[in-house]
Amino acid sequence: MKADIDHLMREAGLDALLVIGPAAHNPNKVYFTGLVHVTSGYLLKKPDLPPVLFHRSMEREEAARSGLTTKDLDDYRPAELLERAAGDQIQATVLLLQEIFNDYDISGRVALYGKRELGAEYGVFQRLQNLSGDLEIVGEAEASSVLARARATKDEAEVERIRGMGEITTKVVGDVADFLTSHRSKNGVLVNSKDEVLTIGDVKRRINLWLAMRGADNPEGSIFAIGRDAGIPHSAGQADQPIEVGKAIIFDIFPCEAGGGYYFDFTRTWCLGWAPDEVEALYQDVLEVYHSVFSELTVDAPTREFQLKACDLFEAQGHPTTRSTPGTTDGYVHSLAHGVGLAIHEAPGFSHGKSNKDTLTRGTVFTFEPGLYYPDRGAGVRIEDTVWARPDGGFELLAEYPKDLVLPVEAA
Amino acid sequence: MKADIDHLMREAGLDALLVIGPAAHNPNKVYFTGLVHVTSGYLLKKPDLPPVLFHRSMEREEAARSGLTTKDLDDYRPAELLERAAGDQIQATVLLLQEIFNDYDISGRVALYGKRELGAEYGVFQRLQNLSGDLEIVGEAEASSVLARARATKDEAEVERIRGMGEITTKVVGDVADFLTSHRSKNGVLVNSKDEVLTIGDVKRRINLWLAMRGADNPEGSIFAIGRDAGIPHSAGQADQPIEVGKAIIFDIFPCEAGGGYYFDFTRTWCLGWAPDEVEALYQDVLEVYHSVFSELTVDAPTREFQLKACDLFEAQGHPTTRSTPGTTDGYVHSLAHGVGLAIHEAPGFSHGKSNKDTLTRGTVFTFEPGLYYPDRGAGVRIEDTVWARPDGGFELLAEYPKDLVLPVEAA
Repeated sequence: MKADIDHLMREAGLDALLVIGPAAHNPNKVYFTGLVHVTSGYLLKKPDLPPVLFHRSMEREEAARSGLTTKDLDDYRPAELLERAAGDQIQATVLLLQEIFNDYDISGRVALYGKRELGAEYGVFQRLQNLSGDLEIVGEAEASSVLARARATKDEAEVERIRGMGEITTKVVGDVADFLTSHRSKNGVLVNSKDEVLTIGDVKRRINLWLAMRGADNPEGSIFAIGRDAGIPHSAGQADQPIEVGKAIIFDIFPCEAGGGYYFDFTRTWCLGWAPDEVEALYQDVLEVYHSVFSELTVDAPTREFQLKACDLFEAQGHPTTRSTPGTTDGYVHSLAHGVGLAIHEAPGFSHGKSNKDTLTRGTVFTFEPGLYYPDRGAGVRIEDTVWARPDGGFELLAEYPKDLVLPVEAA
Repeated sequence: MKADIDHLMREAGLDALLVIGPAAHNPNKVYFTGLVHVTSGYLLKKPDLPPVLFHRSMEREEAARSGLTTKDLDDYRPAELLERAAGDQIQATVLLLQEIFNDYDISGRVALYGKRELGAEYGVFQRLQNLSGDLEIVGEAEASSVLARARATKDEAEVERIRGMGEITTKVVGDVADFLTSHRSKNGVLVNSKDEVLTIGDVKRRINLWLAMRGADNPEGSIFAIGRDAGIPHSAGQADQPIEVGKAIIFDIFPCEAGGGYYFDFTRTWCLGWAPDEVEALYQDVLEVYHSVFSELTVDAPTREFQLKACDLFEAQGHPTTRSTPGTTDGYVHSLAHGVGLAIHEAPGFSHGKSNKDTLTRGTVFTFEPGLYYPDRGAGVRIEDTVWARPDGGFELLAEYPKDLVLPVEAA
């Protein structure tokens, strides 16, 4: 949580955090600013002091809306800095940062954050590092950085925002289910009342529309993958493909608050009309692992324990896993879970590797998503909910939705 | 254009380009891959050779859809690399890149690209640089990088995609105008047929909805700023504020293709019901500068010439500009234009500074957006269209929309 930042900074031996880039779709900036229309600038945080938001003059009112202490970058006369740098934009930025670091008494270890076009920033910070003997620019590993560790646990206000996104997400999932079952099946695919074939593209356009109506953004798109594509976890589905009945459909939806805030992550596997025996059997296997591992979740345990348990169970069912068969694309081929918040994938991780030292701390919000994949048999199954590790040690789904495999569809 | 990349690489003395991050909302990656559901990995480009897309195994089919040569990152056994790196994710990535660079015979100057969380990447490339004597990791300035210069000019297919976004954008602008004028004015603000007060938040929710219906994303939000807020170019407008009649409203809309592709950028200034004399006068001044400078646009000229012309004209009208009065927040306070494409702001720039060496090359797609701002007088005016510098040397608006200041509104 935000309240952890100061002690995490001291633990990591950091003298400052510097967060770059806009205050939208930029988790480490939005974490401090909230969603305001500030498209560039810096946020500087020293231990035990409130952060300072540096902004362009044009964006002064939006910056002020963050409630943070603000500083107008025009006070540093950027045009003059660019002249002094003989038009070299990277050098001008280095000069600006040197002035800021001087004004705010920054030296020692400064950790970099922010989602930005990499090249120019690499140029800036490499040069700044080379010019400044008393400065160490620190690039932490993403999952174990101070801000990743702070963000991994959510306070009540954050949980309520994610819960709100869960409500929107499951309502849209319900809209999609209603829309699909309002069609009929003809020649093995869904058609509307005019016998026009429904495509994945049609469904996805409606998903975007219904999300927008309910006030959410869908910057990463969604997965609506049928049959063989469902057998490949990240296949998004092909827009021009019809919606086949009697095939596994993986529908994975992961929208965020309008303007680039908190995400929700949710998957159901559906068969329209009827489920082939093989998909039904896979579904029961996944459901068994889901319930079994979920019932064993405990706070403060290493996250890798739960991935190992999932591997144990899937292997006992006769499926290959990435533990038993490294590199397999059949069976259980991904991690059980990941943190979710201002980024769709964030700490903690749940990989089974010994290098995974993450724990399931109270306050963590995470997906829970066992799955099985057999692309060559034209099938994949995943069931995913978003879960909160409550302060009292319990685990709570942040949105509920039925786990029916078959959605009924009438013949045309 | 893409066809320029090889000679631009040679000109810049680059031996390879390395583009990091997902294939959505990441302009330099999308430029090569198109919009595919590939959430991580690398793209490697050597001069005169086709690029290679490195992807996770799970995303192999989506990667293949890019049409590029692909390489599965699992072939490098990432789990073993992580063990070799003793769980240090940054070190594991360094080992991976060393193997890739070795396999693909990469040495010399390698330029970095990609929109990614900065910290970890800085850690990786700084360490890779320190370990590899025959390698120089290059961070180019954003506006003058090889890919920025290639992207600044668009081929016909790109122009058609931006034109398509222009059609969607102006249709939604029309929807918004119709929606506003379907209301009536009461006590100085818009109300609906039930006398309920319309707010900026209501309007913005409908903008998102109408964009989604027409198949566009709105990742950066839009500006709908009234009165004093209109006087601050980047004020987005406050959601709970009612829509006042007889005040300047700046409506700036900049959506992109669904999934994170090409943008369009468009602004109109409206007064509902009636325009105060002062706003009307500002509007005429802006319109005069718009038409005058537009008529003087010429291909192959330095872009700064047009900003200087705009300053000349605004100053002759009696307005301060950032040239006459550095740091002013009154008058003409921003650049005349910027390139637009896979990013909302891209090369070329149009600042008046001597360091701006950009030219208005044939094929450039750019905004054209003179404006005047007087926040303390509660007014701002901007008129913005998106323009194509055609191969024949002509200039064409990529979408047309009326430039009426006053939208009629009846009294309740």
